[in-house]
Amino acid sequence: MNNSFHEIGDVIFKSENILLYPHLNMDGDAMGSAVALCIALRNLGKNCYILIEDKVADNLAFMDKGYCTSEQNIIENPDLSVSMDCGDMGRFPNRKEKFVQAPTTICIDHHRTTAEFCQYNYIDPKAAATGEIVFKLLKAMGIEITREIGEALFAAITTDTGNFQYSNTTKETHAIVAELYDAGINASQVSVNIYENNRIERLLITNRILSTLTTECNGKVAICYVTRQMLKETGALMEETEGVVQQLRAIAGVEVAVFLKEKDDTTIKVSMRSKSYVDVAAIAAELGGGGHIRAAGATINSPMAQALDTIKAHIIESLEK
Amino acid sequence: MNNSFHEIGDVIFKSENILLYPHLNMDGDAMGSAVALCIALRNLGKNCYILIEDKVADNLAFMDKGYCTSEQNIIENPDLSVSMDCGDMGRFPNRKEKFVQAPTTICIDHHRTTAEFCQYNYIDPKAAATGEIVFKLLKAMGIEITREIGEALFAAITTDTGNFQYSNTTKETHAIVAELYDAGINASQVSVNIYENNRIERLLITNRILSTLTTECNGKVAICYVTRQMLKETGALMEETEGVVQQLRAIAGVEVAVFLKEKDDTTIKVSMRSKSYVDVAAIAAELGGGGHIRAAGATINSPMAQALDTIKAHIIESLEK
Repeated sequence: MNNSFHEIGDVIFKSENILLYPHLNMDGDAMGSAVALCIALRNLGKNCYILIEDKVADNLAFMDKGYCTSEQNIIENPDLSVSMDCGDMGRFPNRKEKFVQAPTTICIDHHRTTAEFCQYNYIDPKAAATGEIVFKLLKAMGIEITREIGEALFAAITTDTGNFQYSNTTKETHAIVAELYDAGINASQVSVNIYENNRIERLLITNRILSTLTTECNGKVAICYVTRQMLKETGALMEETEGVVQQLRAIAGVEVAVFLKEKDDTTIKVSMRSKSYVDVAAIAAELGGGGHIRAAGATINSPMAQALDTIKAHIIESLEK
Repeated sequence: MNNSFHEIGDVIFKSENILLYPHLNMDGDAMGSAVALCIALRNLGKNCYILIEDKVADNLAFMDKGYCTSEQNIIENPDLSVSMDCGDMGRFPNRKEKFVQAPTTICIDHHRTTAEFCQYNYIDPKAAATGEIVFKLLKAMGIEITREIGEALFAAITTDTGNFQYSNTTKETHAIVAELYDAGINASQVSVNIYENNRIERLLITNRILSTLTTECNGKVAICYVTRQMLKETGALMEETEGVVQQLRAIAGVEVAVFLKEKDDTTIKVSMRSKSYVDVAAIAAELGGGGHIRAAGATINSPMAQALDTIKAHIIESLEK
């Protein structure tokens, strides 16, 4: 049962020392929502920090102007903990104890699977991003949306909606962003920071990976792979191969996109995406992995050449069903 | 001097046989704007077609439900010609005579460099897309925005704003899209049609093009090119090289991304994108071209090797300013 923005606002107004808890591997929504709320609370004179337990991604670091810290005692005795964009406390495993240490807890989230684990909750699965909820909360609290807050909220919303292309995008999403422009946001600069910050090595490795493209089942299956040697030759990092599998899925006629990453000689990580009808989670499960119907993964303990044969065999079998 | 939507609406209401003229190589905005207006005018009972002189791109074809034709006599004696998203008549070279054959002409466009060549004009360089102008015109005319019209306008706006990431995007852009949702648009399906419908040849040619990557000015300038031979070898179409220039701009540190297309031995089309401060429209103008501050183009009449030298020289000069 959700509380009203008024109730949640009252709790925040009454608190002085506040820690915000975004999830591990912060994405644009977790980071942007937390930054927006942190700025707003500091503007109210609160002592507020975003407590994290891993590194801020390079393309999101532009938002962190002294808000994020992994120093759990930055606030010794917080009177309020706010969980942001987290479905459960497992999303901040090494911060759980600190989170529950505060006498009052709030959960602000938009995940469908979120069960209540806080005293105060605003969980709206219809919101395209947690950033939309933070925007509405700040407005309900009568807090001015400054340019910096607006840009953090834009970052949150544009990343979680796939730049307004995903089906979670609503009329309200665009209406909120229209209002953010009143705060003087430079949306294109935010986008440049988030999306146009690729090292040239990312382009080089993507190119190398796409040159390994093969297809199966009359083009229904597209497969690419990356080896450590390819990374070495291009100077790219494994994380810079992210996004390749989506490019494969964007090929007309492709139903299953498959991307294999060589972790070591006999450990191959497989990522799969399907477009409209294949359950890749089931295929992943056959290999001891898991995931969602349209996005799943598994690990195959064999050299790349065999791993390619293995995954092809499993996918062809499932397509023939 | 622009006419009012009221004046332009009157001209349209008075006309019965109307031909719409989007530019060559229709992009999402040219196609979406023309389709939206065509549907609206047919809903008014007008005899209306979109006259084209080249093929509709595969990823835009979903919008064409019998609106586009290259049969110039589909309407023998049009009483109205409407130029859409065209800076000048050179953008529809093989349709010029037909265009001026109509006793009345209207220009609807958002390009900065557009000079008046019609009797009635609505040229708004502040509009992110011609689709925004068509939306406002239809509203001023009291025409209902149906779902099909809304989806065509969404396609126009989302493509010309780079999914709402480019600096041409405004508060009004989002406010308009929010209104389109009232028409029941399925924005994510439109996006899948536009962006997840790539022939595999697009991937192959992109790969070939990126292998021509060179940089200038300490990585501030990234340059790639495509030749007819590369198209032949990959089986790709020139239109499938679209998007490469954005990928170049997405490299960290790149301010100007340049992409050259070989039309014939001595005709090279140059597309430029800038990230945050270079006015590429000014550079394009030096070469007799035009466009927007962050996205512009020109044609160089020399072989590829010389064209590469020419454009590099102009860009380096402008960066040194």
